[in-house]
Amino acid sequence: MIVDRLHDEVVSKGMICVGLDIRLEYMPDFLKKKYSVESDRIFAFNRLAIDAAEDRSACFKLQIACYEAEGIEGLRAYGKTMDYLREKNLISIADVKRGDISSTAGLYAKAHFSGEFEADFMTVNPYMGEDAISPYYDYIKNKNKGLFVLIKTSNPSAADFQEKTMSGGNPLYMETAKKVAEWGADFMGSSGYSSIGGVVGIKNTREFHEVRKICPGMFFLVPGYGAQGGTGKDIKEAISDPCAVVNSSRGIISYAQKAENENAFMDIISERVEMMRRDLAYE
Amino acid sequence: MIVDRLHDEVVSKGMICVGLDIRLEYMPDFLKKKYSVESDRIFAFNRLAIDAAEDRSACFKLQIACYEAEGIEGLRAYGKTMDYLREKNLISIADVKRGDISSTAGLYAKAHFSGEFEADFMTVNPYMGEDAISPYYDYIKNKNKGLFVLIKTSNPSAADFQEKTMSGGNPLYMETAKKVAEWGADFMGSSGYSSIGGVVGIKNTREFHEVRKICPGMFFLVPGYGAQGGTGKDIKEAISDPCAVVNSSRGIISYAQKAENENAFMDIISERVEMMRRDLAYE
Repeated sequence: MIVDRLHDEVVSKGMICVGLDIRLEYMPDFLKKKYSVESDRIFAFNRLAIDAAEDRSACFKLQIACYEAEGIEGLRAYGKTMDYLREKNLISIADVKRGDISSTAGLYAKAHFSGEFEADFMTVNPYMGEDAISPYYDYIKNKNKGLFVLIKTSNPSAADFQEKTMSGGNPLYMETAKKVAEWGADFMGSSGYSSIGGVVGIKNTREFHEVRKICPGMFFLVPGYGAQGGTGKDIKEAISDPCAVVNSSRGIISYAQKAENENAFMDIISERVEMMRRDLAYE
Repeated sequence: MIVDRLHDEVVSKGMICVGLDIRLEYMPDFLKKKYSVESDRIFAFNRLAIDAAEDRSACFKLQIACYEAEGIEGLRAYGKTMDYLREKNLISIADVKRGDISSTAGLYAKAHFSGEFEADFMTVNPYMGEDAISPYYDYIKNKNKGLFVLIKTSNPSAADFQEKTMSGGNPLYMETAKKVAEWGADFMGSSGYSSIGGVVGIKNTREFHEVRKICPGMFFLVPGYGAQGGTGKDIKEAISDPCAVVNSSRGIISYAQKAENENAFMDIISERVEMMRRDLAYE
């Protein structure tokens, strides 16, 4: 089960997930000069970031919106980065948040669990219910893939629906958490976690504890650290077991913009990842 | 406002939206022989379907999952099809159902409302609340774009969350409908409808009436017709005003597979669209 591999990575490297959410304004001049083709340039950026972070990063997450916004060239770099992670035997998360009826979900599964864009995990949206998720089951079982389903996101407007109270007294996100745990029950790994995990933001430690309490076998992808406001102290209070990866993107990769060459680029990334490691360890 | 253009198209042509949800198994042999490059082949298919349907189709919807599943070649055909629709001054809907935090939503807006993949409307997912929608407002106001937000989908598992009762007694989809109407209030066109519309499936006429009652200025994208089970009678009962487009994909474009040349292809598509028109008119 892919979740066991991810769990092992967290045990050995810590819970950092480096977000390769490229923005063109992060691109240092030396890469602009070296590569005239945009996809080559973006891929070179990602390759250096991966090489610099791999020792301390349990996995890497690509926010596909950053690549879609650059059109075909962006998506070409996205595919090359996924390939590179696979070659290096590093775990990849396609942060695509797709959600659609079953026949369409089957196509998204094909798109992101095979072929040019193949990743190990995908993020998906639960609004359409289980038949928008079940087309992925076959890939989880037979192709060693995994999902992170949105449960409670870290943005302010999560209050609009996710925090609304249901007739039974629970907020919607708790109903979502319960369903995700049910869906994941058939995909438990030897680590005690399921290959269907959840996305739960860290801004509110209490919420995180509530979800963990009813979903003890759930592995989490945690957004909201760093640029989005979450601190190492929040994480430390919320998470004691190796049951989560914590994503940081801007707080790591944006600093590479100042680098004047490859060595400097890698030094900056290493240093930013090490700063996050220390912050999460609350040292 | 783009919604006024769509409303005019519905008044003059009827409420059909042809879904260009290409599957490789729909590809007729004569196109396989004529085009060796996959993106050329898919684009040729779409071009013929558009040419054949444009007189009776208010707009065209592209389910991007069909194209993502074919990787870069698929997405190249997707972009060329969007371009072709724009050249012909036909209205396009990017059925992408994206939903993410504001900075990411801004990138999805850039991806699908400008550049290679530019469309007139996008479908979006409401689970993350208004700040996942507001980054599109500027495009609606200044670039004449529109949204369809998922409210009530036509799949069986819509029951998992959308139909669940909230503490006030309403199902979640009614809470979503109310929010979408609020968000859309700033983008009302001269037709009386908003450029922020809703996706509401047609399987249950009562639900459709309930949503319309509290959202009189909402324009609808209606899935679930034809292959998904909705009938012309259902539509007729639910919709009397020109306030909606009804999507059909498989029920139209899959029949072109048997065509032996371009003329036959276009005849088949014309005939299927005309059959749908008659069914919707309940003739």
